Amino acid sequence: MKVSITSGRAEGPTKLNAFDNALLDANIGNVNLIKVSSILPSGTEVVPIPKFPAGDMVNCVLAYTSSDVEGDLITAVVAAATSDDFGCVVENTGVNRDLEDVKSEAKSMVQYMMDIRGLKIKEMLMADETHIVKKQGAVVAAVVYIG
Amino acid sequence: MKVSITSGRAEGPTKLNAFDNALLDANIGNVNLIKVSSILPSGTEVVPIPKFPAGDMVNCVLAYTSSDVEGDLITAVVAAATSDDFGCVVENTGVNRDLEDVKSEAKSMVQYMMDIRGLKIKEMLMADETHIVKKQGAVVAAVVYIG
Amino acid sequence: MKVSITSGRAEGPTKLNAFDNALLDANIGNVNLIKVSSILPSGTEVVPIPKFPAGDMVNCVLAYTSSDVEGDLITAVVAAATSDDFGCVVENTGVNRDLEDVKSEAKSMVQYMMDIRGLKIKEMLMADETHIVKKQGAVVAAVVYIG
Repeated sequence: MKVSITSGRAEGPTKLNAFDNALLDANIGNVNLIKVSSILPSGTEVVPIPKFPAGDMVNCVLAYTSSDVEGDLITAVVAAATSDDFGCVVENTGVNRDLEDVKSEAKSMVQYMMDIRGLKIKEMLMADETHIVKKQGAVVAAVVYIG
Repeated sequence: MKVSITSGRAEGPTKLNAFDNALLDANIGNVNLIKVSSILPSGTEVVPIPKFPAGDMVNCVLAYTSSDVEGDLITAVVAAATSDDFGCVVENTGVNRDLEDVKSEAKSMVQYMMDIRGLKIKEMLMADETHIVKKQGAVVAAVVYIG
Repeated sequence: MKVSITSGRAEGPTKLNAFDNALLDANIGNVNLIKVSSILPSGTEVVPIPKFPAGDMVNCVLAYTSSDVEGDLITAVVAAATSDDFGCVVENTGVNRDLEDVKSEAKSMVQYMMDIRGLKIKEMLMADETHIVKKQGAVVAAVVYIG
């Protein structure tokens, strides 16, 4: 299994379009995303995000939040931990929360998931995105399963 | 890729059953629906909805809303735009909103998605359904990916 | 098609971790769950839950609820009905509701789904889980599609 980690942010005229624009900013706007929960198979390799054929069905763990309140600070984070065996992924989001807090919360959650499974973390990968809303903003962070 | 566009509405004794009845009314009640986001691959052909084997796993973009307030007007809409390259799909719903408003909002959202990708719309396809709630009502509209 | 029915409950330091721990308790914590709606193909066989390779993509119908209020009684139920043709599945959850009520509601909902399709129930299978929250609790019940 190969996975990519990515994130994006955008404004848009509607909530849906801001979300779509954020997906485009993250280079996953031209595929059909299927949300899954949160395990990396053994031997997962992290690679740069490929150029998917438009309309591909793509499994992903997705952190997403949006707001239409001017000045809101919105944040989306994914954290992926690998081990010599399999790995775990968490998503986390925040509105008007410090980025470092949202990231550190994601880190502890994935650390806990690994601990409880008896897995020793080899590598911790994160993607995060913040955005200060103008009119209608969205942020996404994602772990994308490539196959 | 072939897709079908469909919609349905129903009453039911519970929220879950009203939803299920609306799916049956849309001819997608006997499959396992997997929700995806919103791109039509290049060369997508729109066909009448086929008779799926019961229990098939079927990817779809789904607009769904429900209400248990007598007299509520509930609406579900999907709009799909095709081009010479790939296409885009949006879902939209409304409670006590004019059908034409919900449809026109869906149209502008998908138009915006196509514009931002530099895609010229060849065809715009919509499905919509409205229902005035008696006790527990549901409406669905869907773009179903057939494979 | 083979399916398994399972359930689990747990506490955890965060909502996400309590959910993840409940999935582990249900033996579906090490896979990527994809939520689907609710039909069992003809000839479905119910089997004990297998040991999935970590990170498998697994379709499921999932009932899930959580609470961080000490003393809350949380409940998750799935009910699956089979016939000589295909079958139906419902999920149901409750907070501070009698387990038997949540189960009996699930039973009537799946009974109704079978009736409306003209299917005669051969077997009714249920999984249920209740938990009294200490700090942050979660319960899950699931029908897992094995393939």
